[in-house]
Amino acid sequence: MALKSFIHVHPDSHFPIQNLPYGAFKTHSTTLPRLGVAIGDYVLDLSEIAKSGLFNGLLLAGSDCFLQPTLNKFLAMGRPAWKEARDTLQKLLSSTEPALRDNMELRQKALVPMSEVEMVLPMEIGDYTDFFSSMHHAKNCGTIFVGPKNPIAPNWFRLPIAYHGRASSVVISGTDIIRPRGQGHPTGDSTPYFGPSLKLDFELEMATIVGPGNELGKTIDVNEAADHIFGVVLMNDWSGMTMFSCFTSSSSFLSNKISIAYLKETRFWQLEIFRHGNMFLLDPFLERVLVSTSVVIVGIYIFPPHLLGTTISPWIVTLDALQPFACDAPKQDPPPLPYLAEKISKNYDIALEVQIKPSGQKDSSVVTRSNLKNLYWTLTQQLAHHTINGCNLRPGDLLGTGTISGPEPDSLGCLLELTWNGQKALSLNGTTRKFLEDGDEVIFTGCCKGDGYNVGFGTCTGKVVPPRD
Amino acid sequence: MALKSFIHVHPDSHFPIQNLPYGAFKTHSTTLPRLGVAIGDYVLDLSEIAKSGLFNGLLLAGSDCFLQPTLNKFLAMGRPAWKEARDTLQKLLSSTEPALRDNMELRQKALVPMSEVEMVLPMEIGDYTDFFSSMHHAKNCGTIFVGPKNPIAPNWFRLPIAYHGRASSVVISGTDIIRPRGQGHPTGDSTPYFGPSLKLDFELEMATIVGPGNELGKTIDVNEAADHIFGVVLMNDWSGMTMFSCFTSSSSFLSNKISIAYLKETRFWQLEIFRHGNMFLLDPFLERVLVSTSVVIVGIYIFPPHLLGTTISPWIVTLDALQPFACDAPKQDPPPLPYLAEKISKNYDIALEVQIKPSGQKDSSVVTRSNLKNLYWTLTQQLAHHTINGCNLRPGDLLGTGTISGPEPDSLGCLLELTWNGQKALSLNGTTRKFLEDGDEVIFTGCCKGDGYNVGFGTCTGKVVPPRD
Repeated sequence: MALKSFIHVHPDSHFPIQNLPYGAFKTHSTTLPRLGVAIGDYVLDLSEIAKSGLFNGLLLAGSDCFLQPTLNKFLAMGRPAWKEARDTLQKLLSSTEPALRDNMELRQKALVPMSEVEMVLPMEIGDYTDFFSSMHHAKNCGTIFVGPKNPIAPNWFRLPIAYHGRASSVVISGTDIIRPRGQGHPTGDSTPYFGPSLKLDFELEMATIVGPGNELGKTIDVNEAADHIFGVVLMNDWSGMTMFSCFTSSSSFLSNKISIAYLKETRFWQLEIFRHGNMFLLDPFLERVLVSTSVVIVGIYIFPPHLLGTTISPWIVTLDALQPFACDAPKQDPPPLPYLAEKISKNYDIALEVQIKPSGQKDSSVVTRSNLKNLYWTLTQQLAHHTINGCNLRPGDLLGTGTISGPEPDSLGCLLELTWNGQKALSLNGTTRKFLEDGDEVIFTGCCKGDGYNVGFGTCTGKVVPPRD
Repeated sequence: MALKSFIHVHPDSHFPIQNLPYGAFKTHSTTLPRLGVAIGDYVLDLSEIAKSGLFNGLLLAGSDCFLQPTLNKFLAMGRPAWKEARDTLQKLLSSTEPALRDNMELRQKALVPMSEVEMVLPMEIGDYTDFFSSMHHAKNCGTIFVGPKNPIAPNWFRLPIAYHGRASSVVISGTDIIRPRGQGHPTGDSTPYFGPSLKLDFELEMATIVGPGNELGKTIDVNEAADHIFGVVLMNDWSGMTMFSCFTSSSSFLSNKISIAYLKETRFWQLEIFRHGNMFLLDPFLERVLVSTSVVIVGIYIFPPHLLGTTISPWIVTLDALQPFACDAPKQDPPPLPYLAEKISKNYDIALEVQIKPSGQKDSSVVTRSNLKNLYWTLTQQLAHHTINGCNLRPGDLLGTGTISGPEPDSLGCLLELTWNGQKALSLNGTTRKFLEDGDEVIFTGCCKGDGYNVGFGTCTGKVVPPRD
């Protein structure tokens, strides 16, 4: 029979004793953030558990890793410490264990109602990298902007592609997302203008939080990569673009024999292009990359990749809690080079959902349902590939999966795909959307269905607000 | 008459009392790094000065900012605190001030011979961005890879272009640089191989260290940007590429009507290209971007931008120490948009030199001499532009200038330009180089010539070593 806690956990809760995700929180009485795990409607304050000496295992007895304001020290300790903590906490919280259950004074101090806490970023993020691992997303974007012929380049199947993100703009769920501004460029040879970005979009992603990591110049073997993944969060890698006003639709580009070089990662990039010997400009801010069929690229810049911010959910669900939901990753053809070949290639069956709540509406509407198992490149392949050139990963680094789209039309991971680049509007009870408008709140949820319990991620939310002055 | 210190400083020294650059150091007796300023052949230990109460100004009296292992806390305090510290230290070190001069016990503790210290990174770098602000560098790269017609795209003159770097691989001067490996691609449709990167190169750059910074969603006015720049370091943004074995030279590309889309920033980028309807692959690792005149770009990725590492000099020369060497920035045409228009547009006259010391050779050879004043976009324009979309900068962020090339053939900032992409070899007493070989040590120096004194940066060095297993 299933493990049970002495704390009442509603059957629909994301946070039963089987989950115990990690986060950092503040209360009205605390100044520095504290570390905790979620259990039902409570946060268990790990600093109180540590101070009362209940972490009594080999690795954690006497450690101050749970007295820190972030998880980084604990992340650096690696899987043996993570397993010891999980065993200790599942035992402490189980219905049969008196140590915490029958200690009313400690329960008072250590069990804080979730309604009374403010969640904050649980780790310092040294570097943030965003991959591009969903084949359905790659295929849809390629089809939209290049056409149905060869929508995905062959090297996409050779290695997990990524781009480099900005760590400073990673924010916790609930943070407002400010519509950015920058130089725009209505036509190729006109003077740039300055204005707000258009076509704001969400990107349904998840992200791994890195554990011990590696030294600069060393690599992590793909078959040992799981020991460097502490856990997973929901992530919304917001994006947008300018310049679109001057174009009717991508099909008109194509009909004009101009194709758009576009993938989500390119939305913030700049190309300098000269066409027929004349330079044709694109602005680095927020627009898709435009390439005629007779151009030569003379320079490509990313600056910066994150204008809006990247929102993550407050609770890190550990890889250990996700093991019951492991499933086979898709067969990879062509077979990857040996450094990417896994003895066992795993995905995780995590149901994902996106809702949008327009300003002034009482209810939100579900706009898509996807699943992490839709990834082509696994989390472990992403991590191993990141280090193959000797690039060093550090505890707390964030590795995004890229937009996670499924095969069905209602399983697409961004509005770009759902509205087929604004060609068809989504209906949200009464109103419609092609892209996000100011006041729209975007709500992600993620959950694994166990036998009589969930292992869930809670929500990852953000509201779009106009530019500030 | 010029300010003098009671400490003897050789006239050729980079570190007279007029400079006082900041760094972090370790000694055989210290465990945690300490903060110091350089004076002649000594490091003044700021923790000792702070502990003895000699920082007695309004802002620094009682502050623990100099008891930290990094400068981040001091950087966050801003220009008034930086000026107070400089005034206090110049007074303490002057020949006429007894407080330190005549306190032998404190001098014992606080003045550490440089020969006895190991310098370490002086700040935690939250994010690293690399600009591309030298017009001569842009023009040479464009000419090499696209041809003399329109070598620079017009939007290069509209805003300071940049790309996003990786913070984890920024290392201190003296750290070995390991030749990376990755997937290579000898021809368009063959199976990728795995191997070391070729055409290793240095990039002569400088970088600003950010002070207080800004909130996400807010911007920094270009005319206030200087208050967010603490100081400047020398920087070598190492780069390289694979894949070149299969091509004889860029001219052969051009003669084959294939142009190379290339700028320094693209060396680590990947393009997925389809040409004549067939996908043509490029590997994301270490190669230049190749585009035929009949291709459509379907995706562009950066991953990761730093394979080799980025080396910075240990001493941060403050903007205050550089003021005597300020000079007019070049006139900008077209005039930038209002958010980039500066009331006073300044560069700094900093002479830069690069030497290479091949393995086994006793002497190094000078390969180029350039100057920071060659920048088209100023340091303040770079910083202001970075925030215009609301991107938040944090204390300790690193903003690279990009390769700094001058107008003369012997003032070019990388081997790519100096050897015109390997078409002509450089002679280094007895041997020759087209690109860097294992064992080569690269040494940067930078110095401002004052009236009877220097304000210098010391050196920024690194040696190329083969891949590790």
